[in-house]
Amino acid sequence: MKSQIVTFLIKCPDQKGLVAKITNFFYQKGFNILSCQQYVNSIEDTYFMRIRLNADGTNISKSELETSFLELAEPLQFDWSVNYGDKKQNVALMVSHTSHNLYDLLERFKEGHLDCNVKMIINNHDKLRHIAEMFDVPFYHLPVTKESKKQQEAQVIDLLDSNEIDLVVMARYMQILSSKFINHYKERIINIHHSFLPAFQGANPYKRAYERGVKLIGATAHYATEDLDEGPIIEQDVKPVSHESTPTTLKRIGADIEKLVLARAVKCHLNNQIIVSGNRAIIFPEAGE
Amino acid sequence: MKSQIVTFLIKCPDQKGLVAKITNFFYQKGFNILSCQQYVNSIEDTYFMRIRLNADGTNISKSELETSFLELAEPLQFDWSVNYGDKKQNVALMVSHTSHNLYDLLERFKEGHLDCNVKMIINNHDKLRHIAEMFDVPFYHLPVTKESKKQQEAQVIDLLDSNEIDLVVMARYMQILSSKFINHYKERIINIHHSFLPAFQGANPYKRAYERGVKLIGATAHYATEDLDEGPIIEQDVKPVSHESTPTTLKRIGADIEKLVLARAVKCHLNNQIIVSGNRAIIFPEAGE
Amino acid sequence: MKSQIVTFLIKCPDQKGLVAKITNFFYQKGFNILSCQQYVNSIEDTYFMRIRLNADGTNISKSELETSFLELAEPLQFDWSVNYGDKKQNVALMVSHTSHNLYDLLERFKEGHLDCNVKMIINNHDKLRHIAEMFDVPFYHLPVTKESKKQQEAQVIDLLDSNEIDLVVMARYMQILSSKFINHYKERIINIHHSFLPAFQGANPYKRAYERGVKLIGATAHYATEDLDEGPIIEQDVKPVSHESTPTTLKRIGADIEKLVLARAVKCHLNNQIIVSGNRAIIFPEAGE
Amino acid sequence: MKSQIVTFLIKCPDQKGLVAKITNFFYQKGFNILSCQQYVNSIEDTYFMRIRLNADGTNISKSELETSFLELAEPLQFDWSVNYGDKKQNVALMVSHTSHNLYDLLERFKEGHLDCNVKMIINNHDKLRHIAEMFDVPFYHLPVTKESKKQQEAQVIDLLDSNEIDLVVMARYMQILSSKFINHYKERIINIHHSFLPAFQGANPYKRAYERGVKLIGATAHYATEDLDEGPIIEQDVKPVSHESTPTTLKRIGADIEKLVLARAVKCHLNNQIIVSGNRAIIFPEAGE
Repeated sequence: MKSQIVTFLIKCPDQKGLVAKITNFFYQKGFNILSCQQYVNSIEDTYFMRIRLNADGTNISKSELETSFLELAEPLQFDWSVNYGDKKQNVALMVSHTSHNLYDLLERFKEGHLDCNVKMIINNHDKLRHIAEMFDVPFYHLPVTKESKKQQEAQVIDLLDSNEIDLVVMARYMQILSSKFINHYKERIINIHHSFLPAFQGANPYKRAYERGVKLIGATAHYATEDLDEGPIIEQDVKPVSHESTPTTLKRIGADIEKLVLARAVKCHLNNQIIVSGNRAIIFPEAGE
Repeated sequence: MKSQIVTFLIKCPDQKGLVAKITNFFYQKGFNILSCQQYVNSIEDTYFMRIRLNADGTNISKSELETSFLELAEPLQFDWSVNYGDKKQNVALMVSHTSHNLYDLLERFKEGHLDCNVKMIINNHDKLRHIAEMFDVPFYHLPVTKESKKQQEAQVIDLLDSNEIDLVVMARYMQILSSKFINHYKERIINIHHSFLPAFQGANPYKRAYERGVKLIGATAHYATEDLDEGPIIEQDVKPVSHESTPTTLKRIGADIEKLVLARAVKCHLNNQIIVSGNRAIIFPEAGE
Repeated sequence: MKSQIVTFLIKCPDQKGLVAKITNFFYQKGFNILSCQQYVNSIEDTYFMRIRLNADGTNISKSELETSFLELAEPLQFDWSVNYGDKKQNVALMVSHTSHNLYDLLERFKEGHLDCNVKMIINNHDKLRHIAEMFDVPFYHLPVTKESKKQQEAQVIDLLDSNEIDLVVMARYMQILSSKFINHYKERIINIHHSFLPAFQGANPYKRAYERGVKLIGATAHYATEDLDEGPIIEQDVKPVSHESTPTTLKRIGADIEKLVLARAVKCHLNNQIIVSGNRAIIFPEAGE
Repeated sequence: MKSQIVTFLIKCPDQKGLVAKITNFFYQKGFNILSCQQYVNSIEDTYFMRIRLNADGTNISKSELETSFLELAEPLQFDWSVNYGDKKQNVALMVSHTSHNLYDLLERFKEGHLDCNVKMIINNHDKLRHIAEMFDVPFYHLPVTKESKKQQEAQVIDLLDSNEIDLVVMARYMQILSSKFINHYKERIINIHHSFLPAFQGANPYKRAYERGVKLIGATAHYATEDLDEGPIIEQDVKPVSHESTPTTLKRIGADIEKLVLARAVKCHLNNQIIVSGNRAIIFPEAGE
């Protein structure tokens, strides 16, 4: 485990001595603690920690570490996960018509700013193939109709599973996923919605923003759940607009918000900064990373 | 009409030659056009103009001007209003529990940054009286129960009418006004709602924002209409928040957004920058004013 | 001149009757005035107008229009220009090391969101060629040393002139241009500087931002002038940062600000929204365009 | 020490085991750790911690705690301070002409939103006395000329010292303080500067912002140091502006930024969220407080 950055994400009932016990555990094993971020939800009496460790000073194996950690974790009722930073995550991008999110993610991936492998692009329309080709990423056109929805989803799942996809990014994929799909990739599907949720949930947010005469528009990246646009919010942003904006102008202004919001959300996920708790996403900021 | 700044607000069907005809009209009468702002809504084929005039070069009387303007306005189907800038508007502030909006508006008024007379503060609770006294503004405690609502509203309307109130500002007045009240002061009641509408319409927006795990919170100033929180939006703003925020923290952060948003909306109204069209508010920016 | 959108930009001493005279002129010639935006600088007594016309209702030729307009313009001392919207502008992108601005501009161009022809990419380093190839835009590597600066600039100017370049975009081109170059393309070179000018003018703004401990970082797009980083500012934006950010993190966060700021500035220029006055850039907002 | 919230601020050379050792120390003493925030500056190899403790479970006295903590602190070379939360800080406000910051701070203080005692207002001009009277805070007019500067500062220091002032807030006090004054209240004087520093350091920032044609204006709260406007930045914010703004408009828009920025900075200081390191201020965010 030399030269690795190991990240533990922990959630448990709040109780006295947690930070001391956890940091002591890793200190005793010879790890150097790079950062240790906590959040206490005092309404629900729940404790959250993200702890990043440098494994340089230890010879412990993964299985030894995990066995040993379990002894600490069980009595304290930890809900935990660990990432050893030794394997890039495999990512699939799902799209429909619009290209701005796709370009932005591919460019970050290509230039080494997203720590992952973009393994494929899936589109329910035969569009945007030229972008896949420019960036040399496999493109799959898997059309869907009301009738074929079940089969198409099965195809998609097959494709994802056989490529060992870790994260699915819905970069403006304009289809509602079934519960089966969602649960197969629980907390591993990120969707971008083109409004500042919970405002304008559902279809045509820019048109509705125009009609409502709002003075700002926005975008929201969230984990997909069975309830459309109601999953845990990872990232949101807005920009001021005026009455001058038509639905078309709003769409254009919004595209720039969408692409940055989605990219930041994907980065947070890949970087193990997120713990989901109920319908809220705890997002630990980068700690000098 | 010497040394006055006269502001016309015009709304009409879009048609060729409007700006030429209107500006020519005022130029011929000897006015100096300080600014002339337009907005064409091409979806509804509607034209909007805000034109500010310096009356220094003309001897025309108000009635002559209006009679003459009518000849231009009628064939072109103008919906218009004029403000001669010769009389400060009378303002009533309605409040319930929270003080931040009240302080902020009173301080701007006292220091001469709001061009109006704050004539009274009305509270349905016996609270915040000390602030009214500090700023030497009459305070009326008019309690309301489900049973007394009708009478209380009648009292309020009496008070407003007898003081020739031009603008009612609901600075966190936690009561729903009846249609009768609303229509008595159509487009002359500004409300502040403590969320970025249309998100979290209705009660307890900060609590709901916490539960939904949003990453930004905001405030919206709008004209009050019969449908609660659905009136034309004048001004909105937001601020980023994190999972760390409790409903209490959100309330505190939100208070600062609320007070600036409401003050800006009130200023726009007093400065004749707003034309309401359906459920949208056209807000002309200040033009070097 | 059928079906064209004609834009006049006018600057002149402020005087009575300007808007009436100008709008009347175009109305008489049969133009439909789509928007007419004004700005009066009362400190310098200067008047600015951007007027957009639909030429559908007129048969006038360009030369007739201009001859006729001159009769209006001369006595009123107009400094003016006209764009007939019938020819896309030719754009050259100049870069050095970083790719984010380049990708962003090329993607907007490729997807039809920037109304221009990107004719070439010039780099003083042999880098980023793969991006030019992806987007199928000619790439010129023109290295420069202290000794060869004069010749290299002559080469660049030759290349630009022979391709009838209308606008040069310095998308993080890390060289100072000579006065000769600047003046050859006066008000037609847009530079992006990676700080919120006038803060951190010159080299290494992100490192200096870290050292100064600022709580926000930003980017500025401006016209290049002889004084480095002192030209008229077109667009600026910032984002909050914390003490956690290292110069490297700031660079990454800043890249996203830079790319949006530069794209917006280029769009304003291509869309004839800018009048430069001394060291200030008057930026007319889009009017429902 | 029952029912108190104790906050330690620690700065030291980075080294292995710090978080484990520190949290263990407090855990062993019976404290409940409410939050434990860290920052590692890897450029300077320095470690920073803010740790908040609930003293409910311990009977230790202050002196026992400090004696015991010294044994931990010395070998690890801690630079540290502790606040027991048992005494409100005494604050003096210094002003000159403008009232917006003064009103805002007094209103927060009066309504219980600033955890301190505002003991006095000092003005070098005979202005704003009415505000002091409204809020019932002692007002001292201590005029200053070039000749009397030394004596006036001595008077001010006397006044501050005899009232045991913990924090001096320069709420637009338009005088440069001597090194003697600054050092007497090191890291205990907060100044608000009306620009986004380091832009427009020095006099007349709004006028210079107008002349430079910037597209955003801002404000900066920082600790006062001997070098004018160069002290560690606590808080900054900006707002977009356009060419329409005159220096007067900018001043008005800026006032709203100034008042929120200064209030947030004062709150951070009073809440023990700040560690100064060289010319940078480490600002720990509130942790569910």
